[in-house]
Amino acid sequence: MSKFPNVPPIPFEGRTSDNPFAFKHYNPKEVVLGKTMEEHLRFAVAYWHTFNGSGSDPFGVGTAVRSWDAYSPLDRSKARVEANFELLEKLNVPFYAFHDVDIAPEGATLAETNKNLDVIVAMLKEYQKSTGKKLLWNTVNLFTNPRYVHGASTTNNAEVFAYAAATLKKGLEVGKELGAENYVFWGGREGYESLLNTDMKLELDNLARFLHMAVDYAKEIGFDAQFLIEPKPKEPSKHQYDFDAATAIAFLQTYGLKDKFKLNIEANHATLAGHTFEHELHVSRINGMLGSIDANQGDLLLGWDTDEFPTDLVSTTLAMYEILKNEGGIGRGGVNFDAKVRRSSFEDEDLFYAHIAGMDTYARGLKAAAKLIEERVLDDLIAHRYRSFSEGIGADIVSGKATLKSLEAYALQAKPIRNESARLEQLKAKLNDIIYGV
Amino acid sequence: MSKFPNVPPIPFEGRTSDNPFAFKHYNPKEVVLGKTMEEHLRFAVAYWHTFNGSGSDPFGVGTAVRSWDAYSPLDRSKARVEANFELLEKLNVPFYAFHDVDIAPEGATLAETNKNLDVIVAMLKEYQKSTGKKLLWNTVNLFTNPRYVHGASTTNNAEVFAYAAATLKKGLEVGKELGAENYVFWGGREGYESLLNTDMKLELDNLARFLHMAVDYAKEIGFDAQFLIEPKPKEPSKHQYDFDAATAIAFLQTYGLKDKFKLNIEANHATLAGHTFEHELHVSRINGMLGSIDANQGDLLLGWDTDEFPTDLVSTTLAMYEILKNEGGIGRGGVNFDAKVRRSSFEDEDLFYAHIAGMDTYARGLKAAAKLIEERVLDDLIAHRYRSFSEGIGADIVSGKATLKSLEAYALQAKPIRNESARLEQLKAKLNDIIYGV
Amino acid sequence: MSKFPNVPPIPFEGRTSDNPFAFKHYNPKEVVLGKTMEEHLRFAVAYWHTFNGSGSDPFGVGTAVRSWDAYSPLDRSKARVEANFELLEKLNVPFYAFHDVDIAPEGATLAETNKNLDVIVAMLKEYQKSTGKKLLWNTVNLFTNPRYVHGASTTNNAEVFAYAAATLKKGLEVGKELGAENYVFWGGREGYESLLNTDMKLELDNLARFLHMAVDYAKEIGFDAQFLIEPKPKEPSKHQYDFDAATAIAFLQTYGLKDKFKLNIEANHATLAGHTFEHELHVSRINGMLGSIDANQGDLLLGWDTDEFPTDLVSTTLAMYEILKNEGGIGRGGVNFDAKVRRSSFEDEDLFYAHIAGMDTYARGLKAAAKLIEERVLDDLIAHRYRSFSEGIGADIVSGKATLKSLEAYALQAKPIRNESARLEQLKAKLNDIIYGV
Amino acid sequence: MSKFPNVPPIPFEGRTSDNPFAFKHYNPKEVVLGKTMEEHLRFAVAYWHTFNGSGSDPFGVGTAVRSWDAYSPLDRSKARVEANFELLEKLNVPFYAFHDVDIAPEGATLAETNKNLDVIVAMLKEYQKSTGKKLLWNTVNLFTNPRYVHGASTTNNAEVFAYAAATLKKGLEVGKELGAENYVFWGGREGYESLLNTDMKLELDNLARFLHMAVDYAKEIGFDAQFLIEPKPKEPSKHQYDFDAATAIAFLQTYGLKDKFKLNIEANHATLAGHTFEHELHVSRINGMLGSIDANQGDLLLGWDTDEFPTDLVSTTLAMYEILKNEGGIGRGGVNFDAKVRRSSFEDEDLFYAHIAGMDTYARGLKAAAKLIEERVLDDLIAHRYRSFSEGIGADIVSGKATLKSLEAYALQAKPIRNESARLEQLKAKLNDIIYGV
Repeated sequence: MSKFPNVPPIPFEGRTSDNPFAFKHYNPKEVVLGKTMEEHLRFAVAYWHTFNGSGSDPFGVGTAVRSWDAYSPLDRSKARVEANFELLEKLNVPFYAFHDVDIAPEGATLAETNKNLDVIVAMLKEYQKSTGKKLLWNTVNLFTNPRYVHGASTTNNAEVFAYAAATLKKGLEVGKELGAENYVFWGGREGYESLLNTDMKLELDNLARFLHMAVDYAKEIGFDAQFLIEPKPKEPSKHQYDFDAATAIAFLQTYGLKDKFKLNIEANHATLAGHTFEHELHVSRINGMLGSIDANQGDLLLGWDTDEFPTDLVSTTLAMYEILKNEGGIGRGGVNFDAKVRRSSFEDEDLFYAHIAGMDTYARGLKAAAKLIEERVLDDLIAHRYRSFSEGIGADIVSGKATLKSLEAYALQAKPIRNESARLEQLKAKLNDIIYGV
Repeated sequence: MSKFPNVPPIPFEGRTSDNPFAFKHYNPKEVVLGKTMEEHLRFAVAYWHTFNGSGSDPFGVGTAVRSWDAYSPLDRSKARVEANFELLEKLNVPFYAFHDVDIAPEGATLAETNKNLDVIVAMLKEYQKSTGKKLLWNTVNLFTNPRYVHGASTTNNAEVFAYAAATLKKGLEVGKELGAENYVFWGGREGYESLLNTDMKLELDNLARFLHMAVDYAKEIGFDAQFLIEPKPKEPSKHQYDFDAATAIAFLQTYGLKDKFKLNIEANHATLAGHTFEHELHVSRINGMLGSIDANQGDLLLGWDTDEFPTDLVSTTLAMYEILKNEGGIGRGGVNFDAKVRRSSFEDEDLFYAHIAGMDTYARGLKAAAKLIEERVLDDLIAHRYRSFSEGIGADIVSGKATLKSLEAYALQAKPIRNESARLEQLKAKLNDIIYGV
Repeated sequence: MSKFPNVPPIPFEGRTSDNPFAFKHYNPKEVVLGKTMEEHLRFAVAYWHTFNGSGSDPFGVGTAVRSWDAYSPLDRSKARVEANFELLEKLNVPFYAFHDVDIAPEGATLAETNKNLDVIVAMLKEYQKSTGKKLLWNTVNLFTNPRYVHGASTTNNAEVFAYAAATLKKGLEVGKELGAENYVFWGGREGYESLLNTDMKLELDNLARFLHMAVDYAKEIGFDAQFLIEPKPKEPSKHQYDFDAATAIAFLQTYGLKDKFKLNIEANHATLAGHTFEHELHVSRINGMLGSIDANQGDLLLGWDTDEFPTDLVSTTLAMYEILKNEGGIGRGGVNFDAKVRRSSFEDEDLFYAHIAGMDTYARGLKAAAKLIEERVLDDLIAHRYRSFSEGIGADIVSGKATLKSLEAYALQAKPIRNESARLEQLKAKLNDIIYGV
Repeated sequence: MSKFPNVPPIPFEGRTSDNPFAFKHYNPKEVVLGKTMEEHLRFAVAYWHTFNGSGSDPFGVGTAVRSWDAYSPLDRSKARVEANFELLEKLNVPFYAFHDVDIAPEGATLAETNKNLDVIVAMLKEYQKSTGKKLLWNTVNLFTNPRYVHGASTTNNAEVFAYAAATLKKGLEVGKELGAENYVFWGGREGYESLLNTDMKLELDNLARFLHMAVDYAKEIGFDAQFLIEPKPKEPSKHQYDFDAATAIAFLQTYGLKDKFKLNIEANHATLAGHTFEHELHVSRINGMLGSIDANQGDLLLGWDTDEFPTDLVSTTLAMYEILKNEGGIGRGGVNFDAKVRRSSFEDEDLFYAHIAGMDTYARGLKAAAKLIEERVLDDLIAHRYRSFSEGIGADIVSGKATLKSLEAYALQAKPIRNESARLEQLKAKLNDIIYGV
């Protein structure tokens, strides 16, 4: 029985008054730069926002109206599985992603929790087989339960570390069972409320130990997913250790983990850290660390994670530009809608409108980014701007031949230095033309 | 002839109506935790703000009234030298710090600029000898001149890189000549205005080349100062590469420079990056990278670098706590007042009031931090909080003996997990008692 | 039976290792500027944070451990009443404050809800009589229930407006029954999520109608409490209509409500709006609109309402300065701790430590502010700074005698204009001395 | 002789490789909603940024290369006049705007300054006649000169108030002479650096006196320009009195000035105050106070006024929507590019590229906003959303018939309340379709 009986099949040829749900820009089989859109974008639905999200906020209880609201816990979990695959099919989304607590109710003990998980994982596996849908990534939730009040792998309480580790073990097993392409680590409680009572060095050491254990166990069981760190600077914690891409990379380098992990970059986390989304993607890319993205957007006038569905075409264009420039594109990663409908969009239909808005915005972003690449708009501009490093004194600098002495000798010749305008306003107009012209 | 005839000698025993300039808390010879205050604090005056600063802002020209305003460039430079040493003496400050352009006028060519520098450096050297004052650090200004419009070592123009390198060479020579204890790199233009026209990878490579050249040349001439990177996230650039301590450390690691540099942490730069001052100091410290500090404070409701003199006692206490906890304390670094009097404090006397305010606030912060250490307020609390990692399963985790499997076995025993309140409110009251009780 | 058996009576003479709960600075009967501390401060406990708060946040469920957690709804409400008066007594706090939903469970209908309220209100009334404790203010919660998803008095749904109005009516009756000294309006959902679908003009008109109805009905039933608007710029809404003091005053003026209302200023709301707490108090004061305060503090590096207990002594000093300068001081208002213990302070004892921290910080702030006034530190400085408006051309300006013509004639004389330094750094050092000297 | 010989005539039919300067969307004579584009938009060039701006920032001196750089002060002023009218003509911009100090050099005395002004004003008048270009608004600069260090009309120094008033008088006369359509008041120094030494009440009173004098004198000389207040929250001051639209309206109401003034809303000032541009326009509009706009954009990740040329099409669409909805549209106001080319865009050509980018973005915004109106996208949606206030209980509320009692009686009937989803995600997708479809 359909969970979303009011939502008809969603065509690709454009919206009509008869079917308000149609896509306008996304067409999975359309070819862009030699690959289909679905290969480029690898869209995923975030289970937690879409099936568990209630619309609650710090000043209000949930508003969402879902058909499974009144079910018992395990039945509710099963209904969500059905809803997930129906929504993936209707939306033509190939992937989904979840935390353990999203899919099955927690039990009174770890053993019971794991048993509940097994029931739902079996059901998911069957549905995956019958529908062809796949798990982009899974993870375990180490932040909601009160036991993680002082952190999970960075807790001051070894009992809690042990529990988190046990949960992680199960998470890796679940990932293997369902053929997850990635496994994500987001440390919502891995940080501090106050430096005054925190042993940051021990906590970071323990975080590294936790990750090493994960690497070891995944190898042991033959779970070959790509491992991803997801940076976020703050919220819920005052400060979170994986503040941004640069910080996460520094941490991984320091603890010998850099070649085992890539990054999962989220738009709203980027802006909370004071960066643009494309900045975080670029930093990840040039460090060989761009693994996957959490597609959403924040409100830059608000100071918390609003996790809105992405509708900013400029941002998705620049994001897709970084992904197209990345070696192997998005690779085993994907474009996961870590986004929630607004509290005031509380009906089932809103889940579809929101995903369509996001998918169309990314599809247009992909096309605009492809045009930037095909026309070599930025490539040529950059090659021209930096041409002085290809010859003469510039080539000496890049090759390592130059020293302070040789450069001083050069500068003492007192040839006039000529800089060129960077023409940024012209470039931004050009970018607009390309984005709004596609 | 005195540059500051209205300012009498400044006593340490407390302010009176007769002498509004007296210190209340700073006493250089007072012993705290086995060292004198002046050894702990190693105060420095920032030449640029104190002798060059005019009080201009983006919407107004300078307001400062200085006796040397009407002099010719070289005479003005000489007058500032005299003013510097008079102020250091009156304030009992042992160190000063400068950029090349602060001390001598730029000439029409590099050669002429260097000649001007030589004149003033000789004068500074003589004054240092006669007064016993020292140079905490020097650097070269690679951001004010229009030639650096697109960056200095991260410019797109190799001619500019060469010029910057020649300037750096002279800066290192000046540092050696004056016995500078440190040499600072702050990259005000080392970043980008827009990612669209930036080759970040080449720019970072070039930045690393620049720093390697500096290391090599310092070695060649026997200049053994401590090299310091000063992080700042933005302003003047949209984004600066040395965003914060973690980012700077990641960069230094990536380019094999970590053991050649430490960090110079500035309070206002920390808050612009979204961190507390103590956070940046702590991150630097536990990475063995805490070298020196720029003592000032920002206004957290404003989004730019206000560079106010430090008067927040809570912040200086926590900063001095990190310094006291640092191996070797502040070491060869110091507490440099990278702070400017407000535009509305445009008289010479304000320079003294402002430094006294800052020095007293740091002196009280030092005493409060010392008390925190002597009473083991935080040490004991942290040892107690994390005690579970000293035995049993916690010790196994720390020693590396534990695996996900062994931890799962432990967690499956389902012993109840007991967390303890972190008592943060009580701790903050205790901190207040100590700070305001010293 | 005690709800807080682990908390002994709390003495005023200072903390000891035997009794970690003692006050250090607050002493209700101590006289400051001719009034007792308790008259100046009129402390109140916020029912919602203290008895209903669970420590949940957007990424985690509650952590608080309370003896009444497992009770049935009505029994839980009764237990909270007992806890409230025990805590007020132990802490020597004379007032409390609540929303309707804090004290009694919501029923399935309005009638049932009101019946539940009646039960608890009767119990509160009895407790008030037996303990002498009073209700500083009450209000009704028009933001938590899903019916308010689009606003309460600013909803697009007239049914919801009607329901909110009915709730307000009951709130006024409850206030009268319990002798509330104030009634507060905080519009958590009175704002918008997006301008695109909002009729701001109609919403503001309706908000004004709502307030006029409240004024009329209070008059009708003889409820003479002071009415208060509590500004907040955002959260939960994207934008809230009572953004800050100036905005709220503009609204009240426009709708003929200014003489019926005063403002309840909250520290954390001030900083979210980009203002200091003292700014909002000052703006309210000079407009004759300062009614009461919500005493807490935010984290200026975080973008949401952290509602921390106030421990920043500089801020409480400047806040108390505004209150002492206010005609009639805090008047019928009070210092209400709209503050919550951190999620990691989940034990009952933390409620006491936190209030003691806040009360001591306000008591010290009161003493420091009194000293500022007694020594006329700011009064004399300001009188001196602005003295030019007391005579000559300045007096002409203030009296209204001057015109552009007369002032031009004056300026054309070309007498040199002499400004004086504002000496802000000296003043901040002086302020520190006074604060840390009390 | 042309000031911009490298810039050819700029066609409207679209850019080609032969002429990189062509417009793509702006065509002054194109009719939109019954008026020509030039009537709707009334573009103006900001003299200060375009002809005086040097590209300096707090860390660097100017970079702009202008043909008049080496001229003597008065010749430079004359050259700028010529450049102004050439640029207006080439860009097809009908208006310009200036501060007094932008157009003529300040003299040693007020009399001398006024004489300089007279020379240039005569020249401007002649050019206006010969070209048909007009003055959108003028003002006087009361923030750059050191005399305004403590404020102009809100100074503590009556001499300064007198000088500012004399300057204002001249400004009004200049406006009359040149037929300015508006006169703007932006109070860059009308605020405070610290509350500690500020008499805010007196300062606000004096600000009101200053404005009343302006109103009186304009009437006296028959200068009938529209008077505009331009809000900005901060920078250069810590706090500026005209914080945002609501605050400015509150001030004007309090001092009986509301019917004499309208507001000049600037995009970047809106976001610095924590609002969207469209929010400030909307608030102004529904209060009958929308007078003119300063068209630019900020960087929401930076905390200062970046004054970028507007290229954000979503923002210009929503801004133009407010203007089209405003009674009389932009009226006597205009779209003034208070925007500066980036420091790295230092060549003359950049001035043209930047204005073309801004004009095209506003032209497209106008077309998209017109489409929103023609298709009644938001009007119908809002009429539908709020329909419950047109009948039954809702109509009673709006008509003033309802009371708390009648509404309680209604609510006690316990009819189920049905809210409808606000469908915000669907609406944002629709908005995108309209913007990108024009």
